[in-house]
Amino acid sequence: MSARAGIVVTGTEVLSGRVNDRNGPWLAERLRELGVDLAYTTIVGDRPEDMHAALSFMARHELDLVLSSGGLGPTADDLTAEVVGRFQGREMVLDEALERRIAEIVEPLARRWANLDRRAIEEGTRKQATIPLGATVLAPVGTAPGLVVPPAEDGAGPTIVVLPGPPRELQPMWEQALQTEALRAAIKRATTYRQQMLRLFGIPESEIAETLRVAARDGVALERLEITTCLKGGEIEVVTRYEPPAEDAYQKLVELVRERHADTLYSLDGTSVDEQVATLLSGHTIATAESCTGGLLAARLSARAGASAYFKGAIVAYSDEVKVAQAGVPSELISAHGAVSEQVAEALADGARSRTKADIGVGITGIAGPSGGTEEKPVGLVWLSVAGPGEARVTRSVNLPGGRADVRERATTVAMHMIRRTLSELAR
Amino acid sequence: MSARAGIVVTGTEVLSGRVNDRNGPWLAERLRELGVDLAYTTIVGDRPEDMHAALSFMARHELDLVLSSGGLGPTADDLTAEVVGRFQGREMVLDEALERRIAEIVEPLARRWANLDRRAIEEGTRKQATIPLGATVLAPVGTAPGLVVPPAEDGAGPTIVVLPGPPRELQPMWEQALQTEALRAAIKRATTYRQQMLRLFGIPESEIAETLRVAARDGVALERLEITTCLKGGEIEVVTRYEPPAEDAYQKLVELVRERHADTLYSLDGTSVDEQVATLLSGHTIATAESCTGGLLAARLSARAGASAYFKGAIVAYSDEVKVAQAGVPSELISAHGAVSEQVAEALADGARSRTKADIGVGITGIAGPSGGTEEKPVGLVWLSVAGPGEARVTRSVNLPGGRADVRERATTVAMHMIRRTLSELAR
Repeated sequence: MSARAGIVVTGTEVLSGRVNDRNGPWLAERLRELGVDLAYTTIVGDRPEDMHAALSFMARHELDLVLSSGGLGPTADDLTAEVVGRFQGREMVLDEALERRIAEIVEPLARRWANLDRRAIEEGTRKQATIPLGATVLAPVGTAPGLVVPPAEDGAGPTIVVLPGPPRELQPMWEQALQTEALRAAIKRATTYRQQMLRLFGIPESEIAETLRVAARDGVALERLEITTCLKGGEIEVVTRYEPPAEDAYQKLVELVRERHADTLYSLDGTSVDEQVATLLSGHTIATAESCTGGLLAARLSARAGASAYFKGAIVAYSDEVKVAQAGVPSELISAHGAVSEQVAEALADGARSRTKADIGVGITGIAGPSGGTEEKPVGLVWLSVAGPGEARVTRSVNLPGGRADVRERATTVAMHMIRRTLSELAR
Repeated sequence: MSARAGIVVTGTEVLSGRVNDRNGPWLAERLRELGVDLAYTTIVGDRPEDMHAALSFMARHELDLVLSSGGLGPTADDLTAEVVGRFQGREMVLDEALERRIAEIVEPLARRWANLDRRAIEEGTRKQATIPLGATVLAPVGTAPGLVVPPAEDGAGPTIVVLPGPPRELQPMWEQALQTEALRAAIKRATTYRQQMLRLFGIPESEIAETLRVAARDGVALERLEITTCLKGGEIEVVTRYEPPAEDAYQKLVELVRERHADTLYSLDGTSVDEQVATLLSGHTIATAESCTGGLLAARLSARAGASAYFKGAIVAYSDEVKVAQAGVPSELISAHGAVSEQVAEALADGARSRTKADIGVGITGIAGPSGGTEEKPVGLVWLSVAGPGEARVTRSVNLPGGRADVRERATTVAMHMIRRTLSELAR
């Protein structure tokens, strides 16, 4: 039996849905890498009794480790350290060395703002330096220290790792937490797992479910594989976790998926289409001319570090005037076929390419909605074209479901897959 | 005492962090609108025992209502209906009318894909139509029906509303659920609350904490207001919930915030900068020329329905060549001052404006990192310029913290606020 963990995310702003939680998912990935089984993630508001109830729930289900995020700030509603201390039956004490350290960090920040209340800052610092007796301090990344708080003296219950809410503080602090004796002791039962991901684009999830039934019928030892399939922005991810001796069963499953889904399986190693496109673009340059996606494809192509090696730029041709003047789409094409048409998509791709001197141009034009649809050209219709490198040319239309934001996102993903296919066929 | 609720989000793909949960936050907002207090959101994987434990936890804490999302699909790992039925002590029965209805929905979908396994589809349909005795069926939006499952016959425990995982199915189905007698009965204790939001841009959170201390000192009845402050992408949101008789206390608080934070308070009614910019742009047109943000500002300006009334387009000038050829930046400016400079930001804004014939042009150039920084121009330095309407011109630089994605996002937000300020000063 492997070590089990829970995550408690605190913050009324997260519970109420106003802020998206980035810490739960990130910590979940880290636990998986460690081979620790995540059983629950619970989000609670800033009420101490609710946080306490969540910890009791985790303790009752015999978890070895609980990670908490948030509630470590200097203000009165930041109560995590105190609630955790009480839960673990530990007295709260002022750590004076820590107090000096936080004061040193706060000082230059405070100087950036005029008219701050000094007394308020000192009070906040003292609060942040008051910690459960016996806890290991994790040095502040921002101003808040983290904590690893061992179980109560009688040894029952989980070890609790208390981390700050801002992801850019939490993430480096987790690396520190991993070095502590207290955390290592809590997860010593962790099993080693392998985890692999397949990605497919362009088939319904039920087809994968059917492939799994066929695998079971063919005698693949599925009971040794923990498989989850998930549909995400039009892509299917098949994630399999298993102990190393089940490698054989996994390889048989992969063989079957390759055989049955050769056209749509595009990633055997979990790499995303974004990573694959970045690699395939090596030695090429690319530019886009976008209408309905409004720059989303450009933003996606420029998102990765080093994108300047292949991404030249884009023309967001939202109005027809800009399509003509900046992307060089002949206005006759627009009058003859409409702005959302095969011809205009191709002209946009050509324009992106010629105006920026890129090897590859991508054109996108469509109806994102909610208005502007007609019977012939409904909301969700998008024409996409990839021109280049060289003589390569692919143009297609798709009918995308969902609201305006869905159509824009999905069209961007379709474009990424068209770029990937074009370049990978070329590489063959 | 008001009605209390919990949310249980199911799915290993959500728990493991591979998919972001959109349902928890959305349902949280709906509960708030109803005046139902949300106590916990718990995410569990596809293991029935973990789902059962999460329901037990919610029941033990005397919640009136539990909303679950996910696990209603046709495959064997979709177990929610069965787990909920067992938890409520209700027998599972096949609803034949529902089975026919699902079959009718699935039929045309099945025809779109070649070579589907008919028997597999029938099996899935039967599974989806097998529901707890006494549950109210919510008609499928996709293929999965939802359920409102009353407490066990002895009347203890929460009413459980079982909703599908895809947001575009869950959201319309929630409207149906609201009409059911079973749900109305569960929340009859709901209190009426008012909720208001203030938004500020450009001050640290500790300043708001200090303002709240001043409010307490000045005798504002803060104990009647439930206030949460939250820092989100460089903006501060102050959300206050209160019962209607506390309106007076809230108004006093608002007065104080207006007085102390006149420069940075930009929204008294919770409207976002995106909404305000869209309104302020009425009668104007806008275009952007972006380097480091790679089209993110264009994507944001074109995100709202009706954006074509004001958004003309953009030039994503990622390479210097494109800055010169497409945005009309004089190459001498780039050699003299560097691509990341006040002069180039202004030239980009001018280029965006003149090339698209927009009233307002926005230029952005910066160093998003991780490489490319120097001592003089570190990673995070971004120059932004807004030119127009008319003679208006604002140019400034910011030093943004965080990684590449943070710098790009934050620069986009700074640009939105510069556009807002320019237009709102004009409107005075």
